[in-house]
Amino acid sequence: QSWFHRSAGRPFGSAPQSDFFRPEEGVMLPAGSFSNKVAFITGGGTGLGKAMTTVLSQLGAQCVIASRKLEVLQKTATEISSLTGKEVHAVQCDVRDPKAVSDCVNQMEALAGLPDVIINNAAGNFVCPTERLSPNGWKSITDIVLNGTAFVTLELGKRLIQNQKGASFLAITTIYAETGSGFVVPSASAKAGVEALYKSLAAEWGRYGHRFNIIQPGPIKTKGAFSRLDPTGAFEKNMIHRIPTGRLGRPAELANLAAYLSSDYASWISGAVVRFDGGELVSMGGEFNELRKVTPDQWKMMEAMIRSTKGS
Amino acid sequence: QSWFHRSAGRPFGSAPQSDFFRPEEGVMLPAGSFSNKVAFITGGGTGLGKAMTTVLSQLGAQCVIASRKLEVLQKTATEISSLTGKEVHAVQCDVRDPKAVSDCVNQMEALAGLPDVIINNAAGNFVCPTERLSPNGWKSITDIVLNGTAFVTLELGKRLIQNQKGASFLAITTIYAETGSGFVVPSASAKAGVEALYKSLAAEWGRYGHRFNIIQPGPIKTKGAFSRLDPTGAFEKNMIHRIPTGRLGRPAELANLAAYLSSDYASWISGAVVRFDGGELVSMGGEFNELRKVTPDQWKMMEAMIRSTKGS
Amino acid sequence: QSWFHRSAGRPFGSAPQSDFFRPEEGVMLPAGSFSNKVAFITGGGTGLGKAMTTVLSQLGAQCVIASRKLEVLQKTATEISSLTGKEVHAVQCDVRDPKAVSDCVNQMEALAGLPDVIINNAAGNFVCPTERLSPNGWKSITDIVLNGTAFVTLELGKRLIQNQKGASFLAITTIYAETGSGFVVPSASAKAGVEALYKSLAAEWGRYGHRFNIIQPGPIKTKGAFSRLDPTGAFEKNMIHRIPTGRLGRPAELANLAAYLSSDYASWISGAVVRFDGGELVSMGGEFNELRKVTPDQWKMMEAMIRSTKGS
Amino acid sequence: QSWFHRSAGRPFGSAPQSDFFRPEEGVMLPAGSFSNKVAFITGGGTGLGKAMTTVLSQLGAQCVIASRKLEVLQKTATEISSLTGKEVHAVQCDVRDPKAVSDCVNQMEALAGLPDVIINNAAGNFVCPTERLSPNGWKSITDIVLNGTAFVTLELGKRLIQNQKGASFLAITTIYAETGSGFVVPSASAKAGVEALYKSLAAEWGRYGHRFNIIQPGPIKTKGAFSRLDPTGAFEKNMIHRIPTGRLGRPAELANLAAYLSSDYASWISGAVVRFDGGELVSMGGEFNELRKVTPDQWKMMEAMIRSTKGS
Ligand SMILES: NC(=O)c1ccc[n+]([C@@H]2O[C@H](COP(=O)([O-])OP(=O)(O)OC[C@H]3O[C@@H](n4cnc5c(N)ncnc54)[C@H](OP(=O)(O)O)[C@@H]3O)[C@@H](O)[C@H]2O)c1
Ligand SMILES: NC(=O)c1ccc[n+]([C@@H]2O[C@H](COP(=O)([O-])OP(=O)(O)OC[C@H]3O[C@@H](n4cnc5c(N)ncnc54)[C@H](OP(=O)(O)O)[C@@H]3O)[C@@H](O)[C@H]2O)c1
Ligand SMILES: NC(=O)c1ccc[n+]([C@@H]2O[C@H](COP(=O)([O-])OP(=O)(O)OC[C@H]3O[C@@H](n4cnc5c(N)ncnc54)[C@H](OP(=O)(O)O)[C@@H]3O)[C@@H](O)[C@H]2O)c1
Ligand SMILES: NC(=O)c1ccc[n+]([C@@H]2O[C@H](COP(=O)([O-])OP(=O)(O)OC[C@H]3O[C@@H](n4cnc5c(N)ncnc54)[C@H](OP(=O)(O)O)[C@@H]3O)[C@@H](O)[C@H]2O)c1
Repeated sequence: QSWFHRSAGRPFGSAPQSDFFRPEEGVMLPAGSFSNKVAFITGGGTGLGKAMTTVLSQLGAQCVIASRKLEVLQKTATEISSLTGKEVHAVQCDVRDPKAVSDCVNQMEALAGLPDVIINNAAGNFVCPTERLSPNGWKSITDIVLNGTAFVTLELGKRLIQNQKGASFLAITTIYAETGSGFVVPSASAKAGVEALYKSLAAEWGRYGHRFNIIQPGPIKTKGAFSRLDPTGAFEKNMIHRIPTGRLGRPAELANLAAYLSSDYASWISGAVVRFDGGELVSMGGEFNELRKVTPDQWKMMEAMIRSTKGS
Repeated sequence: QSWFHRSAGRPFGSAPQSDFFRPEEGVMLPAGSFSNKVAFITGGGTGLGKAMTTVLSQLGAQCVIASRKLEVLQKTATEISSLTGKEVHAVQCDVRDPKAVSDCVNQMEALAGLPDVIINNAAGNFVCPTERLSPNGWKSITDIVLNGTAFVTLELGKRLIQNQKGASFLAITTIYAETGSGFVVPSASAKAGVEALYKSLAAEWGRYGHRFNIIQPGPIKTKGAFSRLDPTGAFEKNMIHRIPTGRLGRPAELANLAAYLSSDYASWISGAVVRFDGGELVSMGGEFNELRKVTPDQWKMMEAMIRSTKGS
Repeated sequence: QSWFHRSAGRPFGSAPQSDFFRPEEGVMLPAGSFSNKVAFITGGGTGLGKAMTTVLSQLGAQCVIASRKLEVLQKTATEISSLTGKEVHAVQCDVRDPKAVSDCVNQMEALAGLPDVIINNAAGNFVCPTERLSPNGWKSITDIVLNGTAFVTLELGKRLIQNQKGASFLAITTIYAETGSGFVVPSASAKAGVEALYKSLAAEWGRYGHRFNIIQPGPIKTKGAFSRLDPTGAFEKNMIHRIPTGRLGRPAELANLAAYLSSDYASWISGAVVRFDGGELVSMGGEFNELRKVTPDQWKMMEAMIRSTKGS
Repeated sequence: QSWFHRSAGRPFGSAPQSDFFRPEEGVMLPAGSFSNKVAFITGGGTGLGKAMTTVLSQLGAQCVIASRKLEVLQKTATEISSLTGKEVHAVQCDVRDPKAVSDCVNQMEALAGLPDVIINNAAGNFVCPTERLSPNGWKSITDIVLNGTAFVTLELGKRLIQNQKGASFLAITTIYAETGSGFVVPSASAKAGVEALYKSLAAEWGRYGHRFNIIQPGPIKTKGAFSRLDPTGAFEKNMIHRIPTGRLGRPAELANLAAYLSSDYASWISGAVVRFDGGELVSMGGEFNELRKVTPDQWKMMEAMIRSTKGS
């Protein structure tokens, strides 16, 4: 049995080469990297937002998490706080509503002060053929993802500028924001809008001490994402074969990247768009990548055929 | 006086090299290219929309133009129709309102049938430092550009699919949709969203016979754009120097490109994004392009300095 | 039997929706669009180069075609010339050799004068797992595609500048120049290099009256490309299913696009990159596009599952 | 005096807002992150290569640095080794020569074994109007940057595959690889080629346990880069004003990013392109970013003019 086919001990739902790409899930940055810093994470109660909040808290940040479900937020806040010993505040906020966003920032100012680190992570999404989508279906996603991110960013930006305070803004988008994708079209459009918003402000608001960066995650198993994007689980199976690293990403890996980009180690990074996808996008996009299915023997045959070709 | 500096007869507001890039404003496609076709153009009453409508009408299309100001539309419709002898219908429609969009398509179906050619051209925009923008200011642009385009596209897509009718969709975005830009941030975000929408549907709705393409115009003088983007005229002057072709674009040039992409000559073009900007974007984006200001004598000096450098 | 599955009369190797995207292969531009113009086309003896030469000649250009095989060039030149009544010159030239390129331009100057239109179309390519590639294998492709294009462009650029003559430069690259692709790696790298070359010069040489544009073709059946990229024909079959327009492109379609970009109708287009691929790239790249395989009944089931999801 | 104009203590050659973006130059990753790993860095004797080698060595890697000047390499090797206590090997190698590359890898195998971390950092570059460039001038850059990177990558890739060993490959390109840039055209073309090479192999060689990523640096002061790109220093002064973070980058900051991408913390990152430029690219590219020069009073006037505009 060749090395290429060995698989003992590989996690379920992964390809052989994932042995080479084992996840390192420990905290990466030096302890205290976010001491005396306040971090604001939308959608911080669940999934990737929770993972990022955990790492920032472990690194010393005082965190404020916000989304619609206060109960969920509070449970997460307590859980993280007891792990790290740092305060985590839960604030209810529907980002689609500018008034709610403003109230939330008021609360944050009272609780912890204006943030040094902002992560726009809240989102909604579901798979659907676009011809089955109503105007309301369209808005149910874009209002959260694009308008919500804009309202949070405008509100915080204005207050930070007024207070002459610098900050790092990070948005979590997706690998299909640049390429587009069928069947998740409102999400693709809104995330592309978020990317333009962030690139624009990286240029415009640098003079106020603000950085803006973007992470484009590929598939990372969270309940929120997978229950609405792959309800049957069929998609995941096929996906693994086109991910060069042979596995899904882990929330803790994303959290380390997010912490880095939000930290002073990255104080010269602004306007950057970091794809974090195990190689999935380049693998899907390259016209001849399907030839990975060709076996060595077939290659020999094909090479002979090519060599014997004469002229054009 | 060197050839490089001659300028006799050059249009006002252009650089010397524009002599090499004189606009050809005649209709390009063969007569009758759009015979028996219906074209729907949002914002078709003014500026670029009017120019595109004119050319499509000259090429035999029955056109339907739609925007908020019925009077403006009617004036344009009459003007074009008397020029070309083809019917041009004016339909009032605020694209931000899904009900208005649906009513408008009803009217179009009654007047001319479902369209073969759709051009999403309506937009709003103005320059503004982002920290001076309210949530309503943000929505005043994104609701037209992103939601408006989506509502038009969803409504027409559904009806075309139901009627098993193919169509060409074209969106007019802008060169800063990909790069982002400060001071026009809602426009940048919304246009980026439109691009993702179109790339997504190019992939998803090909099976229904639909193509989706994008033109990204650079600066083309229209009252609508320039009065809100360059009210003082100061910007235009500077801009010319960074446009490699040394002049602004003309509406008729854009109209020829739009007609081509909407025609059967382009039936294999889908998911394409065509920049139409006199070279402005590549000129702005390249890190060393400012060196165009270096004179030949200075180059000689610099080359000597470089040659004399030792080691790293 | 539904409209979606009808296929009577469809050309072999195409999907049902290709009925909506029938190729229009007649010449598009007005007669005489290239009268009194000289066009230089590398690789003009075969495939796409031959198709472009044919259309430019039909539109009145005096053409000069150049590549290694003089006999092939001469046969093509005679064939086109007798069709169009315009002179077509055949000049032997291996673009990898700067001396040969210079000699070729000398010959062209003597025969027809310096060109108004330049199309860098010559290329080499074959599929191969990269670990089977020697340094010589690497260079066999990159020397033609990247260095060859650069040598032709530098030689012509210098002479045109010296003669104060404007020109349109067009490069034929490929859809995987931006994304990269396994199994055609030297081609991907070299074509990406060509794109950067052209975008750079669009910015730098505008002041000399030169435009630079790029066409990225998707799969168009030519002997040269397909015999070395799909020797068994297996690839083509699979490819059709991911092309939204359901068919391959035709040389005559590409030729119309190339003629447009090289004409005065496009005198404001510079630094543009026009994808011409039936939608293939956006279709491959979008993460959820595989869901096109889901049937309407399966969608109903999936929607029910998604709707019943609670929380994140 | 407003906060916006304060500058006390700011490093020379920086803008006011750089106070918000002070560089953090300490080592970021946990100690021992590269224990028992071998790292190979081309151009590791000077500039950014030296900075990356230093950090990897501090983190426990055994480093092998290679370039043309053995003496320079040896001096750097000794210097780093005495700082970190880890072995640093100096191997002479001209990357343009496949035979030299193969010999170098032989030596590395004997000294340290095959590498776990490969950084393709060697490059050449100088500013020059392209019409002053000979074919040899073109090749003097592209042979190092594109062919050199390819030869190193092919040689190491083949041996690693044969030995069933995974590895992280990192290439240092530049922000103008995607946009192109005049006056550094061979560099732009070759770096774009390197990016396509890496994206292609990220897709193709994942199955062998290899990751491929790219850093695109903006301006970081090193003798090698600045003496050949900005011999007079005039360029640097202008550049600062278009960098949103108001300062140049530091080698140690780049080194932390490079170490992260090469580490197991990034084992799910492949095919990524990370811009590291203080926001320069988004700032240059956005069409309206020049409006940063408009003062608050001028904005008031412009807003009044825009508000008074009627119609389109
Ligand atoms: N997991 C992946 O594979 C993946 C891939 C690409 C991108 N992403 C992105 O990663 C981010 C996190 O996703 P996830 O996978 O962690 O899924 P998730 O757990 O469902 O996270 C989404 C969060 O957004 C919050 N949210 C939704 N609507 C909101 C609203 N109107 N106002 C405020 N908060 C709202 C939700 O909280 P409430 O319900 O309490 O409001 C929830 O905490 C999202 O931006 C997603 O697009 C994820
Ligand atoms: N000119 C340029 O330099 C330039 C550059 C890049 C992109 N563009 C794009 O080109 C397109 C045309 O611009 P233009 O220069 O021709 O300017 P314009 O004359 O102002 O065109 C905008 C059109 O949109 C219509 N519109 C605005 N809001 C609408 C709404 N809510 N519902 C329906 N229609 C609406 C307007 O008509 P009503 O007022 O009657 O509604 C108007 O006809 C726009 O998409 C613009 O972003 C232009
Ligand atoms: N067909 C497609 O699907 C497709 C897709 C994407 C891109 N393209 C691009 O389209 C262009 C044309 O390709 P094609 O399909 O028409 O294939 P083709 O017929 O093989 O064309 C290649 C041409 O390049 C010439 N050539 C090769 N090496 C040369 C050298 N060293 N010096 C001068 N000329 C040389 C060949 O002529 P000699 O042998 O006489 O030298 C030949 O005429 C190429 O750039 C290709 O990459 C094609
Ligand atoms: N500094 C910046 O602002 C900046 C910005 C963007 C990108 N970069 C990139 O960063 C990398 C490092 O640049 P740097 O600023 O550190 O400049 P540098 O000190 O000049 O580094 C270039 C290195 O490449 C080596 N090299 C050159 N030709 C070689 C050959 N034929 N074979 C082997 N090695 C060769 C040189 O060593 P020998 O002379 O001993 O051969 C030198 O160590 C380069 O890829 C550069 O393009 C730098």
